[in-house]
Amino acid sequence: MNESIKLHEENRGKLTVKSRVRIQNKEDLSLAYTPGVADVCKEIKKNKDRVYDLTNKWNYVAIVSDGSAVLGLGNIGPEAGLPVMEGKAVLFKEFGNVDAFPLCINNQDPEEIINFVEMIEPTFGGINLEDICAPKCFYIEKTLKEKLNIPVFHDDQHGAAIIILAALKNALKFTNKNLDDLKVVSIGIGAAGGATIKMLQAAGIKNIVAVDKNGIINKNDPKTLLNDFHKEISESTNPENLSGGLGEALVNADVFIGTSVGGLLTKDMVKKMNKDPIIFAAANPVPEIYPEDAKKAGAKIVATGRSDFPNQINNVLVFPGLFRGALDVRASDINDEMKLAAVDALARMVPESELTVDKIIPAPFDRDVGYNIAFEVAKAAVRSGVARLPLTDEEISQKIKKSFEIL
Amino acid sequence: MNESIKLHEENRGKLTVKSRVRIQNKEDLSLAYTPGVADVCKEIKKNKDRVYDLTNKWNYVAIVSDGSAVLGLGNIGPEAGLPVMEGKAVLFKEFGNVDAFPLCINNQDPEEIINFVEMIEPTFGGINLEDICAPKCFYIEKTLKEKLNIPVFHDDQHGAAIIILAALKNALKFTNKNLDDLKVVSIGIGAAGGATIKMLQAAGIKNIVAVDKNGIINKNDPKTLLNDFHKEISESTNPENLSGGLGEALVNADVFIGTSVGGLLTKDMVKKMNKDPIIFAAANPVPEIYPEDAKKAGAKIVATGRSDFPNQINNVLVFPGLFRGALDVRASDINDEMKLAAVDALARMVPESELTVDKIIPAPFDRDVGYNIAFEVAKAAVRSGVARLPLTDEEISQKIKKSFEIL
Repeated sequence: MNESIKLHEENRGKLTVKSRVRIQNKEDLSLAYTPGVADVCKEIKKNKDRVYDLTNKWNYVAIVSDGSAVLGLGNIGPEAGLPVMEGKAVLFKEFGNVDAFPLCINNQDPEEIINFVEMIEPTFGGINLEDICAPKCFYIEKTLKEKLNIPVFHDDQHGAAIIILAALKNALKFTNKNLDDLKVVSIGIGAAGGATIKMLQAAGIKNIVAVDKNGIINKNDPKTLLNDFHKEISESTNPENLSGGLGEALVNADVFIGTSVGGLLTKDMVKKMNKDPIIFAAANPVPEIYPEDAKKAGAKIVATGRSDFPNQINNVLVFPGLFRGALDVRASDINDEMKLAAVDALARMVPESELTVDKIIPAPFDRDVGYNIAFEVAKAAVRSGVARLPLTDEEISQKIKKSFEIL
Repeated sequence: MNESIKLHEENRGKLTVKSRVRIQNKEDLSLAYTPGVADVCKEIKKNKDRVYDLTNKWNYVAIVSDGSAVLGLGNIGPEAGLPVMEGKAVLFKEFGNVDAFPLCINNQDPEEIINFVEMIEPTFGGINLEDICAPKCFYIEKTLKEKLNIPVFHDDQHGAAIIILAALKNALKFTNKNLDDLKVVSIGIGAAGGATIKMLQAAGIKNIVAVDKNGIINKNDPKTLLNDFHKEISESTNPENLSGGLGEALVNADVFIGTSVGGLLTKDMVKKMNKDPIIFAAANPVPEIYPEDAKKAGAKIVATGRSDFPNQINNVLVFPGLFRGALDVRASDINDEMKLAAVDALARMVPESELTVDKIIPAPFDRDVGYNIAFEVAKAAVRSGVARLPLTDEEISQKIKKSFEIL
């Protein structure tokens, strides 16, 4: 039997819910539950913010998925998506000490998903949307960010975008190029690709060419504009008015970003790119091009989504620390300032002395990644005015350390 | 500071989510999460039932509340209700090794609550409705039981009803009375009172007088029929066509069941009851009458909801074992047969040799209560045809023991 199935079958799942208080006698029971708990309820009734002190809300994150775009497997539904969400919860705990709980729901209507997440807001300190297909994921996240007073974050979008920008910043140190002058080609304009384009633009990159199923997205060519999101980005991308496919897009490009389908990028295409091309081939499990082939064709730096090659673009580097930081200052949002703080924290986690073409991003098991991202994200939340606890840097540091220690 | 508030504040809540798999290196990560987990997803996509083997669904219970009737505190809302739901989850774990997660929602519309619970069905093995006010709780539970293929159980209703019937069966051993001949007066026709009446009727009791805010519920007196549920039970209760208040109802009654408000029952009223009256005064925290006063007025047996008096009517005796049993045979419902099996299991948990007027029900810390209820409930599920795993008694016993052992 397949090893992963065996692991899941032997364990009967990966998650458990535990008590953090002892219940060994009548008195324990009367304090943790009735009648004592009534006073706790009344205290929160008087002042709703006390729910953060007296329950686990401060540390609860819901992982909400409708199973419409799970990994590279497509619309496999909520039950089949559950092992991924449990895995995500395991990683939240392991790398951020965040108590995340999977909620796979059997309704794929955007308005129903929005309504659902609104309903659970009282219980959770944050919402992680997961594996919800594009383009509806953009609308769902945007609407929820406006409606809710707790952070909402679609990891498939921004987790990938944050790592890719961090990796790109470090990769540029091996070339004589600046962010402003780059020509970037991004293929696969789903959740990850779409958010990456926006984040690269926020970082100052002007020349981005977006490629999706019908070729280069071109505002003058309606057949390339498959949905509202394509229309939106067509206004700010493709400044040279290119048309055609990936091959045409890549001529004189500096950076390839693939969040699409395995095997799409050929050696010949890489050869048409500018000197020292940077290749981020993040399709999983088969990358758009294998590192060996990319290197043979002249690539200076290659990253993939896989753990068995160098430079793994793995969201686990980001979401645990990002939520840790947002939760610990009770941020009402995860905004661009916080995401860019995560980018810089992540890029700096590879010290200059260790930086090589095969190590532009830290590995998932560099244990202080979680703390460092949390610290920078929390500071950015305070700076940008979305932290309900406007702590000092020192207070933030202590708070995060304490949160990592809690059982 | 109040001790319970202190406990909650120092712990920052009572619950945590934990991993049951180790994540210590790249290989662990690739088996529990991507890329390995993709095979697990595909396996469930092929055969949806495999979700019970490969995720924690087999052991997940959602504790769903809108905060509309929390303890005796009324409609205090979802945030203020959260400490109770966390407490409930703690008890699920402690006494049934069930992984329960609180979901306090900020919408009190019955249709929205029903829709919400339908949406989370893929993730959970069972649904525990909690602290949802009457009479809407009856409609919500009934509708969900019809719609869902996993067990739905409103503990405020049936938890109380199961313990009260078990306690009554044991109490009768101290009198010369049979269930069929009893006159029972029930005051407080909310969730617990309403379900108790139905359970007593299912057990064969014919003469029940229901009393609520406008006195004895009488089908000929519209002002006593405050809602549809009152109308429904008015057809099967009050065979002597009584009118008036609690005092009138109690003349020649054998049993008083209070799930109402503290202090309502006076010594004079008890004196008007038949010989050897049985008093279950379950209002919390102040019972309808204190045991000492009831005894002085001639009560043979008194039970309350409090842990500091004998015979505590405490739902924790029931729900952990009941769900354990239902989950372990993958029951699609918690039906009357299963509830009555729980009644008998609970009544038998006090052996004849230990049975006294001050011990008619086991104490919450009699540790084998959970196992015994689970075993009888699971067998009843198989007998009544709602078990998707139609196991033998021996298999059930082994399965439950194993479930109690899992971390």
